[in-house]
Amino acid sequence: MKGLRKITPYVPGRQPNYPDIIKLNTNENPYPPSPKVEKALRNFDVEQLKSYSSIDNSLLKNALGSKHTLSSDHFLIGNGSDEVLAFCFLAFFNSADPILFPDITYGFYKVWADLFQIPYKELPLTANFEITTDDYTQLNGGLIIANPNAPTGLFKPLSEIEQILNVNQEVIVIVDEAYIDFGGQSACSLVDKYPNLIIIRTFSKSSSLAGLRVGYAIGNPEYIKIAESIKSSFNPYSVDSLAENLAVAATEDESYYLDITKQICETRDWFSETIATFGFTSLESKTNFLLVTHPKISSEPLYHYLEAHDVFVRYFPKIERLKNYLRISIGTQEEMETVSQLLRHYTKTALTTI
Amino acid sequence: MKGLRKITPYVPGRQPNYPDIIKLNTNENPYPPSPKVEKALRNFDVEQLKSYSSIDNSLLKNALGSKHTLSSDHFLIGNGSDEVLAFCFLAFFNSADPILFPDITYGFYKVWADLFQIPYKELPLTANFEITTDDYTQLNGGLIIANPNAPTGLFKPLSEIEQILNVNQEVIVIVDEAYIDFGGQSACSLVDKYPNLIIIRTFSKSSSLAGLRVGYAIGNPEYIKIAESIKSSFNPYSVDSLAENLAVAATEDESYYLDITKQICETRDWFSETIATFGFTSLESKTNFLLVTHPKISSEPLYHYLEAHDVFVRYFPKIERLKNYLRISIGTQEEMETVSQLLRHYTKTALTTI
Repeated sequence: MKGLRKITPYVPGRQPNYPDIIKLNTNENPYPPSPKVEKALRNFDVEQLKSYSSIDNSLLKNALGSKHTLSSDHFLIGNGSDEVLAFCFLAFFNSADPILFPDITYGFYKVWADLFQIPYKELPLTANFEITTDDYTQLNGGLIIANPNAPTGLFKPLSEIEQILNVNQEVIVIVDEAYIDFGGQSACSLVDKYPNLIIIRTFSKSSSLAGLRVGYAIGNPEYIKIAESIKSSFNPYSVDSLAENLAVAATEDESYYLDITKQICETRDWFSETIATFGFTSLESKTNFLLVTHPKISSEPLYHYLEAHDVFVRYFPKIERLKNYLRISIGTQEEMETVSQLLRHYTKTALTTI
Repeated sequence: MKGLRKITPYVPGRQPNYPDIIKLNTNENPYPPSPKVEKALRNFDVEQLKSYSSIDNSLLKNALGSKHTLSSDHFLIGNGSDEVLAFCFLAFFNSADPILFPDITYGFYKVWADLFQIPYKELPLTANFEITTDDYTQLNGGLIIANPNAPTGLFKPLSEIEQILNVNQEVIVIVDEAYIDFGGQSACSLVDKYPNLIIIRTFSKSSSLAGLRVGYAIGNPEYIKIAESIKSSFNPYSVDSLAENLAVAATEDESYYLDITKQICETRDWFSETIATFGFTSLESKTNFLLVTHPKISSEPLYHYLEAHDVFVRYFPKIERLKNYLRISIGTQEEMETVSQLLRHYTKTALTTI
């Protein structure tokens, strides 16, 4: 057969689908969506589905405009931030020079670059898993930085993001803020100052709507329009009517989401401190997950031990420097208490056996 | 700014959004989705949305497997048939030889070919707007044929599709069956005989779910897997949990959809015969739309007249051979009676004035 494309796809965290597990492997939110989302669902007129969904998503763009105090032409809406990122790669990364991103970051960046045959260069994080600002001054065809980064959870101060924007004014700099609501500071305030800045956001994490598939880009209207033309050339109606409606309801209930986000951050910090008392160290996270390690405990058997106790976390055996780490999403306080007890028990047994 | 992509996107039919219009410009279904779809919506547990949607869409694949009596690995599910088609272009059309499709067909084929820089050749329809089977024997990198074709509405007998499959066994042949339920005969029965056949289906037309964004491909499991790897490299979760749930409910209510489809076909044939009595001719449609023309009436002013009376149809001024045609989607019997009265009135007035 002629013309077939062979490619290595992104491998997401497993989605085990049986009750009573503690699922901490894909950074989902443990709390339900806002009651206003449920109300929007109950009030939705099913007959509306016979017609195409909105082509310009103006309802959601207006709601986001109010939230971010930016005009609605600063937004591109898509089917999750994955789709928005794919459109941005197609729209902005068409140079012969390589795009730059950290060697340890969201694994999908490399997959899109491969899919669209975009040259790229991975820049190593420091020994402390930090992004070296000065690395991002070399010749490039665009940049993409997750802030906070994943799976490290580390947040880069806005002043350093601004430094990167400053020295790269001739290319688009994408800042992926999927986890920004868990303690970081958004680069949103820089959008009007730096036309080369494109920020990516998602409803999957802090908004508890991973299953609804809505994400967006924020940026200079001139460049947003180019990304919009890629969307219109790929799949113009990718956000369905239900998804847009429910995302508007979520956007309008900031106080509910501030509450659950605060709770998650408190649980994260409590969990990090608790497991530290039996030897685990965690990177300083501004996200809803922790990257943890233990000087005397191997990650792989611990990963399997947790799974045997119906706790699913993420282990990255293919990334050399993460071989002795586990990425643990933050669940409810109750779930994290169970996990910390399992870790305490495992550590005690393992260290006694040694 | 470096690396920007300039592209001419697909221009869909307008989506006017005010009440009491008769919207016949994007081939939507005038009837609501099945009552089972409404029930699935009402019973949906909103908390489910905090988790990612299914990565393999096994629920929907199983439902479609029962419907088409094929195993579930014959299906790829996507966010509308537009997304499925985009994935198939990326997966199957990577040859240096041009892909082939008719010069008058779904306008998006050319847009995807441009977006992905796939060489293509448009083959002219005959004077009667028919696809010439023999044209599709020349050297190519793959084929895509809409059957029934749009915006002509003409259906190509399965024997001719099989002829095309036979002479093109070294490339993928995509048969886009978006409108198949309105009187055509599906190529589904050929899937196991021709591994080079990929069929595309949508829930947007006969299933009254344009606003839900669900479509699928049917094909040989080996090639479906390649398209699946493209999906996993682009946006693995593109079908949200609500969409999958509601599409399953629709798939399971065949009798409701047979009823409304039959009604639409009856209205279509009635409308075609009625407007023929005052001079309009329609191509023989096996779809939910008619391509109509009148020997003494120009399409453009008629288009504007209908719009002034809140009736939206599709006019293609950029396609030379369609300049004196209008594409009219089939609405309810009542809507089509209104439209036929408007056409009768316009024709009478226009011909008197001449």
